[in-house]
Amino acid sequence: MNRVSSQEVTEATKKALIERGVSIRAIAEIVYEMQASYNNGLTIEECIESVNMVLLKREIQHAILVGVELDKLAEQRKLSEPLQSLIDSDEGLFGIDETIAIGASLGYGSIAVTTFGHLDKNKIGIIRELDTKKGVKVNTFLDDIVAAIAATAAARVAHKKRDEEDRIALENSRIREEW
Amino acid sequence: MNRVSSQEVTEATKKALIERGVSIRAIAEIVYEMQASYNNGLTIEECIESVNMVLLKREIQHAILVGVELDKLAEQRKLSEPLQSLIDSDEGLFGIDETIAIGASLGYGSIAVTTFGHLDKNKIGIIRELDTKKGVKVNTFLDDIVAAIAATAAARVAHKKRDEEDRIALENSRIREEW
Amino acid sequence: MNRVSSQEVTEATKKALIERGVSIRAIAEIVYEMQASYNNGLTIEECIESVNMVLLKREIQHAILVGVELDKLAEQRKLSEPLQSLIDSDEGLFGIDETIAIGASLGYGSIAVTTFGHLDKNKIGIIRELDTKKGVKVNTFLDDIVAAIAATAAARVAHKKRDEEDRIALENSRIREEW
Amino acid sequence: MNRVSSQEVTEATKKALIERGVSIRAIAEIVYEMQASYNNGLTIEECIESVNMVLLKREIQHAILVGVELDKLAEQRKLSEPLQSLIDSDEGLFGIDETIAIGASLGYGSIAVTTFGHLDKNKIGIIRELDTKKGVKVNTFLDDIVAAIAATAAARVAHKKRDEEDRIALENSRIREEW
Repeated sequence: MNRVSSQEVTEATKKALIERGVSIRAIAEIVYEMQASYNNGLTIEECIESVNMVLLKREIQHAILVGVELDKLAEQRKLSEPLQSLIDSDEGLFGIDETIAIGASLGYGSIAVTTFGHLDKNKIGIIRELDTKKGVKVNTFLDDIVAAIAATAAARVAHKKRDEEDRIALENSRIREEW
Repeated sequence: MNRVSSQEVTEATKKALIERGVSIRAIAEIVYEMQASYNNGLTIEECIESVNMVLLKREIQHAILVGVELDKLAEQRKLSEPLQSLIDSDEGLFGIDETIAIGASLGYGSIAVTTFGHLDKNKIGIIRELDTKKGVKVNTFLDDIVAAIAATAAARVAHKKRDEEDRIALENSRIREEW
Repeated sequence: MNRVSSQEVTEATKKALIERGVSIRAIAEIVYEMQASYNNGLTIEECIESVNMVLLKREIQHAILVGVELDKLAEQRKLSEPLQSLIDSDEGLFGIDETIAIGASLGYGSIAVTTFGHLDKNKIGIIRELDTKKGVKVNTFLDDIVAAIAATAAARVAHKKRDEEDRIALENSRIREEW
Repeated sequence: MNRVSSQEVTEATKKALIERGVSIRAIAEIVYEMQASYNNGLTIEECIESVNMVLLKREIQHAILVGVELDKLAEQRKLSEPLQSLIDSDEGLFGIDETIAIGASLGYGSIAVTTFGHLDKNKIGIIRELDTKKGVKVNTFLDDIVAAIAATAAARVAHKKRDEEDRIALENSRIREEW
């Protein structure tokens, strides 16, 4: 059996996103929009770094590979019926796309799931673009997965900010004690 | 051991909601707002019926009982620290309230989880009222659980509508065949 | 857009299972094994009925269609790399098969998720057979989905039994009151 | 509002486990049992380190605090009915304990959920001890949460091992290239 290395999977993941018109910056912009109001001084660079870190997670990588594969096969009309029509038409009660995306966004707690739900419903930035292309392109899986990546990266930003605040508070209390 | 009957649990659930100021109609109004645009001719009565059906589900009932208990204990300042302060302040990265709510909203597929995320973020109707009362009352768990009930009832309405459409389509095709 | 009827999806689901060598009775036997010790007088017929009911749920149907499609495409070596190798080798840290299965087994509460985990780890009955065929056949997704169907049907049996007990207890208490 | 620092929560978490008779080593022993057959040369020290890392995750910490609080309140008979009896009797269809535990074990992908299901059903080591104490003590929530911690730490061990193997393979291929 041919065992696949993590490096190969990471490369394939990034290639798949680019090929489908999704840049890391476009996802980072959603992260910024989600977190900026809670986080003074947040920069787009921090959001890009957070997306990059999230893209190293195996669950996210596998979700991207499976989702993009299914979208492309649907586009080429290579799926059996009735699955072809279900994915093609982004049937409202078809939930496997969301299941895969939710499964991938669970890494940073329930805050990521909530943010995912919000993004999935309100389709911000590149998520809306992916949704609009429908007709020409099939993005049934990809728009949900991008929402999951953005939600997870946003949750990561929130957790890291809190860690930093706690670290500073701890340091200050140590300084006070030393006085 | 004292075994509790389903009827007792159902009664206790409804009492808990009323006691905390949440009417079935108020939840049904959120369901209506979520589904009306997809569902011509949807009535508030159908939404009330859907909420009532969802309230018979054990997972939902248990979530209500645990959530309201924790909110009340927090209100009475009877929880140990640091849990008391975490719930009291509805700490942003505390996710057990959402975890319980998401767990309860899984009964009707991932569509319910997505709707839950949207409601949790955008706080519509009674969910906003519960959120605003904070300070006097502790509704850390209840606002999420109400969002879960509304999301589940909305998903149920969507599934039932689809079943009905399919039934009619099937009947029409049978009539056509007989001709 | 070609809208697919529920009837078509139900038919396709059953055909997919049979084509891949999974009978409803084989799944029902797992359900029986899971529930018999808690449920005196449980029959295989009740388990078959429960599997049949669970197979009507959209989430389960969609999971079967997607899972079997991916298994078949992997068997025909029609997937892109590195996804082909990941599914082919049933890579241990590849979790999309389990994510889809867990998503489908959430309909009857957390008891179904727990049972799913047990079945997935201990591979009982037809699940083991599917697993053993690997090498010739690819069943990366199907074995998890069968575990999810069995877990959901087992949870359904447990819930129904409890409903029945409560109904009888209620009736008895009414009879006592009338005396 | 009194904001709680991460350090306080971490301290309280460890105290809660010890107070309820759960040592980190006891959890690590389950991790070892789960992973040893896949991982030659795995030591109990690595498992202890993995449990310690997992105990730093907020989702896990909050689950411990809420679960132990509810167990203790049930023990002191301070919960309202019918919740008191539901938790007291570890009612089979009561799933909030498992929901909280599953929510906490999602951090390392679906492999953790599967392992959780297995541990929850087969009750290994300290999980069995907690379960046996029932009658004197209430451990309705804690046994599930310990299973979640062990499952998450086991998944972490599996992921880290794979990372290490991939790192070595990459290094070897670089050495080959240089020759």
